[in-house]
Amino acid sequence: MPKLAELAETIGAELVGDPNTDVSRAQTFETASEGDVTLATKAAFIDRVDQSRASAILVSAPIENCSRNLLIAKNPKLAFARAIQTLHAIRYEALGVCADLIAGEGTTLGKDLSVHSRVTIGREVVIGDRVTLHPGVVIGDRCKVGSDTVIHSNVSIYHDCKIGSRVIIHAGTVIGADGFSFVPDEEGHQVKLLHLGGVRIEDDCEIGANCAIDRGGFGDTVLRRGVKLDNLIQVGHNCDLGEDTVVAALTGFSGGTRAGRRCVIAGQVGTNQHVTIGDRVTIIGQAGVTKDVPDGSVIAGMGQSYNSWRRSQVLYSNLPELVARLRQLERIARVSAQTSAEESKKSTGND
Amino acid sequence: MPKLAELAETIGAELVGDPNTDVSRAQTFETASEGDVTLATKAAFIDRVDQSRASAILVSAPIENCSRNLLIAKNPKLAFARAIQTLHAIRYEALGVCADLIAGEGTTLGKDLSVHSRVTIGREVVIGDRVTLHPGVVIGDRCKVGSDTVIHSNVSIYHDCKIGSRVIIHAGTVIGADGFSFVPDEEGHQVKLLHLGGVRIEDDCEIGANCAIDRGGFGDTVLRRGVKLDNLIQVGHNCDLGEDTVVAALTGFSGGTRAGRRCVIAGQVGTNQHVTIGDRVTIIGQAGVTKDVPDGSVIAGMGQSYNSWRRSQVLYSNLPELVARLRQLERIARVSAQTSAEESKKSTGND
Amino acid sequence: MPKLAELAETIGAELVGDPNTDVSRAQTFETASEGDVTLATKAAFIDRVDQSRASAILVSAPIENCSRNLLIAKNPKLAFARAIQTLHAIRYEALGVCADLIAGEGTTLGKDLSVHSRVTIGREVVIGDRVTLHPGVVIGDRCKVGSDTVIHSNVSIYHDCKIGSRVIIHAGTVIGADGFSFVPDEEGHQVKLLHLGGVRIEDDCEIGANCAIDRGGFGDTVLRRGVKLDNLIQVGHNCDLGEDTVVAALTGFSGGTRAGRRCVIAGQVGTNQHVTIGDRVTIIGQAGVTKDVPDGSVIAGMGQSYNSWRRSQVLYSNLPELVARLRQLERIARVSAQTSAEESKKSTGND
Repeated sequence: MPKLAELAETIGAELVGDPNTDVSRAQTFETASEGDVTLATKAAFIDRVDQSRASAILVSAPIENCSRNLLIAKNPKLAFARAIQTLHAIRYEALGVCADLIAGEGTTLGKDLSVHSRVTIGREVVIGDRVTLHPGVVIGDRCKVGSDTVIHSNVSIYHDCKIGSRVIIHAGTVIGADGFSFVPDEEGHQVKLLHLGGVRIEDDCEIGANCAIDRGGFGDTVLRRGVKLDNLIQVGHNCDLGEDTVVAALTGFSGGTRAGRRCVIAGQVGTNQHVTIGDRVTIIGQAGVTKDVPDGSVIAGMGQSYNSWRRSQVLYSNLPELVARLRQLERIARVSAQTSAEESKKSTGND
Repeated sequence: MPKLAELAETIGAELVGDPNTDVSRAQTFETASEGDVTLATKAAFIDRVDQSRASAILVSAPIENCSRNLLIAKNPKLAFARAIQTLHAIRYEALGVCADLIAGEGTTLGKDLSVHSRVTIGREVVIGDRVTLHPGVVIGDRCKVGSDTVIHSNVSIYHDCKIGSRVIIHAGTVIGADGFSFVPDEEGHQVKLLHLGGVRIEDDCEIGANCAIDRGGFGDTVLRRGVKLDNLIQVGHNCDLGEDTVVAALTGFSGGTRAGRRCVIAGQVGTNQHVTIGDRVTIIGQAGVTKDVPDGSVIAGMGQSYNSWRRSQVLYSNLPELVARLRQLERIARVSAQTSAEESKKSTGND
Repeated sequence: MPKLAELAETIGAELVGDPNTDVSRAQTFETASEGDVTLATKAAFIDRVDQSRASAILVSAPIENCSRNLLIAKNPKLAFARAIQTLHAIRYEALGVCADLIAGEGTTLGKDLSVHSRVTIGREVVIGDRVTLHPGVVIGDRCKVGSDTVIHSNVSIYHDCKIGSRVIIHAGTVIGADGFSFVPDEEGHQVKLLHLGGVRIEDDCEIGANCAIDRGGFGDTVLRRGVKLDNLIQVGHNCDLGEDTVVAALTGFSGGTRAGRRCVIAGQVGTNQHVTIGDRVTIIGQAGVTKDVPDGSVIAGMGQSYNSWRRSQVLYSNLPELVARLRQLERIARVSAQTSAEESKKSTGND
């Protein structure tokens, strides 16, 4: 159990309070009690800091006359993420290799592994050190798995895929299935384009549950260092997702999509084939990316800029009102046309 | 094989016809023949009741001079669902526990189980009575599985998840993977928020194939009694779905979404983080729930009311026509401005 | 290693160049070097054909004064697909049946199989010849699997499903889970409609990773000959997808959807229950199919024709401008009404 002073140092926060306080857990603001560190970023929580029973509260700025221990950090949410890791991360312990492991010829295993029961590995696979493989994992021939990587239950990895170090792959995900490319022949039957490439997942990536990351046609499908995917995401053949890009659930990248670094892509987004998304792009949920997107853009709807889409979307909701206004103008125009006609008739009659 | 009188009583329908008729199957209106009970709710079928070869026909009201056995029920579809269960449900028979079961220390098994081959269970797990576990199921440490629950092939359940009684989980589904929460650090690298909560699935839930239900950050992700999920559904960390709510395929609930009781949520719907959906809400397919939704609402598009969305959607299809009308008005305005200018010029000239 | 003349004949292309050239690989235009056949369909590549180091280049028309070996084909992409198959397809080799196969009573196995470790098959299943079953595959009672079919890791097939010949099913896919049909009872609890039908997947289908294809209520869910599904696709109970139809990732077909032959359905499309889609229909990504679609249509948005949707979508982006124009007209109308009022007042005053 660390003292508050140590925790403050570890997470990069400034302590205003008692350095000798014991802290053992991270908790939400509403559930925190003695021994807990918590987070107050919303105004509603900051107003109630004095009533909190937490032993320390992470905030972004000092609070005058505060009775509680405060941890002040420029980015309190980041400091809180680090506090949770400090207090709750379970230190890795090697469980060994279950005796029922099936591994093909030429496969080499690193040291200090945790290979659970019912794991199946093909030929000439290289497994790094301290790798955890959960039950039902299947790894194909000639794959590589880097050190400290965790692969959860029932993940299927096809042949010739490279997984980096410190990668986490959640249960049920499939890596390296064939890309979806067919050409109709003279009779309309679909002829399969064989996929000769593989998949390369670089260090520090995390991939959610039940995703599907296809192998490349020629060359690899690539997830660069630090990419984080949520659940149920489709990554088509030869996609290339840039460093530290995060993607929410049920998004689908068509074959050949390229995304830059540090993008934030929300859920249920779809991309057209071969589009290129720049660096630091934000894509709003359910958007369709129909064409290339420059660095730093915010995109929504069918490839619109977010601001333009917001305006369109508000007006879309107001379309019935707009049509009523249009109809009113048409009525005015009709009346005025009639009046003119009558006046012109009158003046003609007057002649 | 029950007699028609017994079936009528079991399903809560009133019989008009021969109580001693044998019925052995439920069938669709078009395929039903002797020995079958069927359903006629559409007008087209009701008109043809006399031509049906079924031994009994479920309808919502008596039909005069009808030559067939009728089962009259206020809700014939519900009565038909019960008839199918009565005639076709397979009575549970315990198959025993396959000798290859791997179960960790401290795990306890109920009685009359059906544990198929290649099931892997962690430590300190509690399995109730008459539970069915299909091949490839993996259950993590400290989980609980209630009585009469069926878990299909290759389902992965992480540690510390609670599954109620009479729950059905279809194949490939993943329960308890980490929620998707990251905070970028000073260098733009994503720092993982560890997830300390679990998942709680209450009694009588059914979860489709290849779903992903993430564990909570602090506290549990909850599916309350009787929730029914279709296939390929994403339930983010700390979601809370209310009793008897049904959700169609490919819908994604972002972290912290709350839904009330008896909601009907269609396919490919997405929700923003932390939105609250009331009771008895209906959400149309592909809608985006961007803000809180009051009880009893019907929602479509980007969080609009269904009626407003329908009008907007019709006008959206008519936008080219609306623009033509706008252009016509602009032409009139231009002409009339010209006329005024000429007249004013004329009158000025006349001066 | 075939000579170029043989390859030309196999893939149905006309050779202009040296028939004795050796070719061993297919490669992209940008990576091809000696010994490779490649494809030049884009103008940019055709302009650079002379600079290519490839041993043969597939094009759609002769190029004058070209220094390279050309393979001329009416459909060069199709010819290239065939060239990849000719040069890279791995000839099937039977690996035998792993000793740990678990198969129920009455199950029969064809000859020359490749059954990997940890496969589980139920009772009375019929497996054809030269079938490949990867680790973790589970096949339920009374299923049939045709010859030359490949089922990848951790696929789950429920009882009573029929899989044709030369079918490929990618990892993690679930076939035959219950359809999603419930009827609320008097207290709002959902009563399950039991599903008595199965699934029938005809010859030459390919199904992507982590799909879910539900069994029928009465009668089967059907994928007809040559249907190709991408990853993460939902096929509801009693759907019927026509021959040679291709479907991209994350699309969901509601129960009872019928699609015709040779349709091209993009990603994240959703259909309403019981809609019928004609033959040769194209559906654009993220569209919603809300009603029946005639043969040969191109559909986008909420069931609009593609052309109409394109126009609406452009105008939708321009809605702010349209509203500005409307406002301008209203201003004119206001001014002119005022002018008339003043004039009429003036003339009245003049009286």
